[in-house]
Amino acid sequence: MADNAEIQEVTKQVQDVVLDENGQPLSKNALKKLEKEKLKRERAEKDAAARAAQAQAGAAAAVDYSKDFYGKKPMNRSEDRPGLKHERLSEISASRAGEKVWIRARVQTSRPTGNKMCFFQFRQNSSTIQGLVVFNDTSISKQMVKFAQNVTSESIVLIQGTIAKPLEPVKSCTVQDAEIMIEQLFVTSEAQGRLPFNLEDASRPEADFEREDAQFSKVNLHTRLENRVFDLRTITNQAIFRIQAGVCKLFRDFMESKGFLEIHTPKILGAASEGGANVFKIKYFDTEAYLAQSPQFYKQMVVCGDFERVFEIGSVFRAENSFTHRHMTEFIGLDMEMAFEEHYHEILDVFDELFVYIFTGLETKYAADLEVVNRQYPFEKFEFLPKTLRLEYKDAVALLRENGIEMGDYDDLTTEIERRLGELVKEKYKTDFFMLDKFPLEVRPFYTMPDPKNPKYSNSYDFFMRGEEILSGAQRIHDPDFLIERAKAHGVDPESIKSYVDAFRMGAPPHGGGGIGLERVIFFYLNLGNIRRVSLFPRDPKRLTP
Amino acid sequence: MADNAEIQEVTKQVQDVVLDENGQPLSKNALKKLEKEKLKRERAEKDAAARAAQAQAGAAAAVDYSKDFYGKKPMNRSEDRPGLKHERLSEISASRAGEKVWIRARVQTSRPTGNKMCFFQFRQNSSTIQGLVVFNDTSISKQMVKFAQNVTSESIVLIQGTIAKPLEPVKSCTVQDAEIMIEQLFVTSEAQGRLPFNLEDASRPEADFEREDAQFSKVNLHTRLENRVFDLRTITNQAIFRIQAGVCKLFRDFMESKGFLEIHTPKILGAASEGGANVFKIKYFDTEAYLAQSPQFYKQMVVCGDFERVFEIGSVFRAENSFTHRHMTEFIGLDMEMAFEEHYHEILDVFDELFVYIFTGLETKYAADLEVVNRQYPFEKFEFLPKTLRLEYKDAVALLRENGIEMGDYDDLTTEIERRLGELVKEKYKTDFFMLDKFPLEVRPFYTMPDPKNPKYSNSYDFFMRGEEILSGAQRIHDPDFLIERAKAHGVDPESIKSYVDAFRMGAPPHGGGGIGLERVIFFYLNLGNIRRVSLFPRDPKRLTP
Repeated sequence: MADNAEIQEVTKQVQDVVLDENGQPLSKNALKKLEKEKLKRERAEKDAAARAAQAQAGAAAAVDYSKDFYGKKPMNRSEDRPGLKHERLSEISASRAGEKVWIRARVQTSRPTGNKMCFFQFRQNSSTIQGLVVFNDTSISKQMVKFAQNVTSESIVLIQGTIAKPLEPVKSCTVQDAEIMIEQLFVTSEAQGRLPFNLEDASRPEADFEREDAQFSKVNLHTRLENRVFDLRTITNQAIFRIQAGVCKLFRDFMESKGFLEIHTPKILGAASEGGANVFKIKYFDTEAYLAQSPQFYKQMVVCGDFERVFEIGSVFRAENSFTHRHMTEFIGLDMEMAFEEHYHEILDVFDELFVYIFTGLETKYAADLEVVNRQYPFEKFEFLPKTLRLEYKDAVALLRENGIEMGDYDDLTTEIERRLGELVKEKYKTDFFMLDKFPLEVRPFYTMPDPKNPKYSNSYDFFMRGEEILSGAQRIHDPDFLIERAKAHGVDPESIKSYVDAFRMGAPPHGGGGIGLERVIFFYLNLGNIRRVSLFPRDPKRLTP
Repeated sequence: MADNAEIQEVTKQVQDVVLDENGQPLSKNALKKLEKEKLKRERAEKDAAARAAQAQAGAAAAVDYSKDFYGKKPMNRSEDRPGLKHERLSEISASRAGEKVWIRARVQTSRPTGNKMCFFQFRQNSSTIQGLVVFNDTSISKQMVKFAQNVTSESIVLIQGTIAKPLEPVKSCTVQDAEIMIEQLFVTSEAQGRLPFNLEDASRPEADFEREDAQFSKVNLHTRLENRVFDLRTITNQAIFRIQAGVCKLFRDFMESKGFLEIHTPKILGAASEGGANVFKIKYFDTEAYLAQSPQFYKQMVVCGDFERVFEIGSVFRAENSFTHRHMTEFIGLDMEMAFEEHYHEILDVFDELFVYIFTGLETKYAADLEVVNRQYPFEKFEFLPKTLRLEYKDAVALLRENGIEMGDYDDLTTEIERRLGELVKEKYKTDFFMLDKFPLEVRPFYTMPDPKNPKYSNSYDFFMRGEEILSGAQRIHDPDFLIERAKAHGVDPESIKSYVDAFRMGAPPHGGGGIGLERVIFFYLNLGNIRRVSLFPRDPKRLTP
């Protein structure tokens, strides 16, 4: 080809004999000069054309034909209300393929592929779906793809796209038979800076961290709690707090069905009523007040006020300077109190039905959430009997002794012994839940009714889940004079509990009840190892934020 | 008859000629003496017979043939559980006449009639029934009647009797077509001493006290609150607190139906977050903490933790040293917070439906209780629209000005002006409930989103019932930098709200919500004059007991 070109050039020069202005052929030098000028001119022309072409091409590229379909939105200040319908991921499936939808979701992960594609995983609560931004030369520009690839994880985006059926099920998402072909992509709230930890790591099954090839780091509880708002976004936490709301709802529904009335008692008290230990003190204008350790006295007073069956869901405060796996300084009490007709075992009957209702309700109505928690924190199925086991304290002591635990008849149970008892009961009776009745009088509060048959015992009980206490209750003393006698025996000044004692002077029905620690029920049901996992923002002596 | 007796006596003396030991008739003197002795003997015999008869009669009277059927029972310590079925008064009617029943109830009143009868009015919560103890010589002894007549009001009794149809309806009781013929009567808990006031007086319609012939004294609020346990027994208070529980239930049912999750946020906070005024300080181990003035920050943080719609029913604490009819230092907040898609009016839409649901629910499900309250404290029917009126602040100001109220465009509303506005709105729009939208930015907290169209206003609202505020809410600022800017403008140190601001750094949806004062809703709905009437144990700067 080079040879050919040279031949052509020579031929051209021969044909184009150049003459000067007078018609005489030019000298060789002049010819050379002319030649040079010509080449220069041609080169310039070529360059200009190239530049023009380049300019034209550049202009074409700069015209971003997607520019209205992506970008960062300014902060929503409720400027307008176009009325777009926003889809819930949980309602998207292959059957709706071809439909155009608007979705607001978080970017869980994004994965760029070359400069023409970006895969997303979007999240709404516990639902996830795959979305794709794919370059094409009419509607999805390279600029748009680049923008998509730079969206940070956990940012909130508003997307518009078409529901499509993926070639293969998207195993990594909860919506597996559908994905979104994105046409518009707007960031409405950008996640700034570095995330405190990887949300995927924070949702991994505990067992993953045991693997030798583990390439990720375990997120410890402290880190989670320090970054609790972020931590709450894991699907496991979403499930845990749905379960928590579920227990409240089941409790309430049951109590209402049994004629119990919901009440609200004061949390600020004029006296540190129940003995005075472990009470938070408040500056109350020019005097002092105390935070309620339980609604105990007040729910009893309400029963004396003729609301015969009451329940309360409310905050409970304990100034216990302890850092165990099951103590917090603030928690939610599910309390009930009721007048009974003949025997305090009527209360146990109500509680029995209640707990069976709650456990059954969790299994039937919250199965999906339990499964989510189980994947990250595997737990043994919670076993319970249709009619709850009631064990008397003395029989529990006997069972413990048979199994080598040394303890006195009237000794209180330590946490360790409680757990052992739980194991023995599980072995013998095949249940993770039981009632321990007839506690020694000595270890119970002054207002506990002594056992009429044996003054060393009392009409009081604790309930246990997986060997840990979740409820404490009793028949209360409803005779004012006897109450004062017992208060004195416990070193409680009757003057300090005057309005409480007075409540029994105008006729009081025999009554009793109990307080359930909401967080404990969920904690032990799910066997989560630490109660802080089931409190949105747990409080202990060292933790007051967030 | 006397003549006849004399004749017989004489005849007798003649027939019985008395001879001496020797067969000779006795002398007159001897005869006289004998006669005297005879008379004496006869008299003695008569006396003895009389005494014997008397003794016999006395013995018969002392044998109390009812003695096993009445008396004071010892304190119930759950000795046994015979399993008697106890009836609810509300389930007794004439159709069951002839049936023998056991009932535990309070003695509301007792009325002795001579020494052979005693009428009772028994009470269970809001139900009352008449009972009678009537002497008969086989089963109801005079001793039993006497015992019955001495039972003190408000004592709790266990009775066994037969349901009977009264001759006339018992107008003074809620069960009017049946009464109880008592066969057994036991006091199980005796009301001691003098009652603080007459419960009947405490339940009288307010109008009764205006009557000229009023023979009873009005029980003022202070006396009621000092003796709150007793006061709670009035049928009106029983109704008020059933209504209160009803509002909670309606709120919850509605929120759950709209996909809101129930949460529980901490009440002990590490920082006096919302500006620092009116906060109770707690001694928290070796540091200080504060009581939550609202779940505001935490419910927002939970929304940022991807629980997009949440609600909470919980205690709220305000250290306001004020003694108005509508302030307490502790009350129950019905809070909600939600991410919205486009415009904060989506929140108003939810609230609108919620309140219509609550008001309608009260009318339909709590009609009987409303009627009870209405009898003692008559109130005008609460008017509301099927679609709630939304008034903009500027339009409210215009309306007020048209009616002679002078105020600046951006002035806050005083309680007095709020009431006037309520009246004007009622007049113009025929509603006791409305939403006031677009408050001046100046009078709202720093986290309130300014109105994008006019920086003097904000995306915030209050709701009013009968011209008094019952809810405050807004779109919140969800951009961390803008939030800091606004905090600074309000003199709030951004460091003091760091964990709150940080919650918005990892992507936050636009959101907002509001907090309803539970007691206020009931207080204004029933127009009760003082909020303390709708709190079981109200708290104000001077009241910490009972």
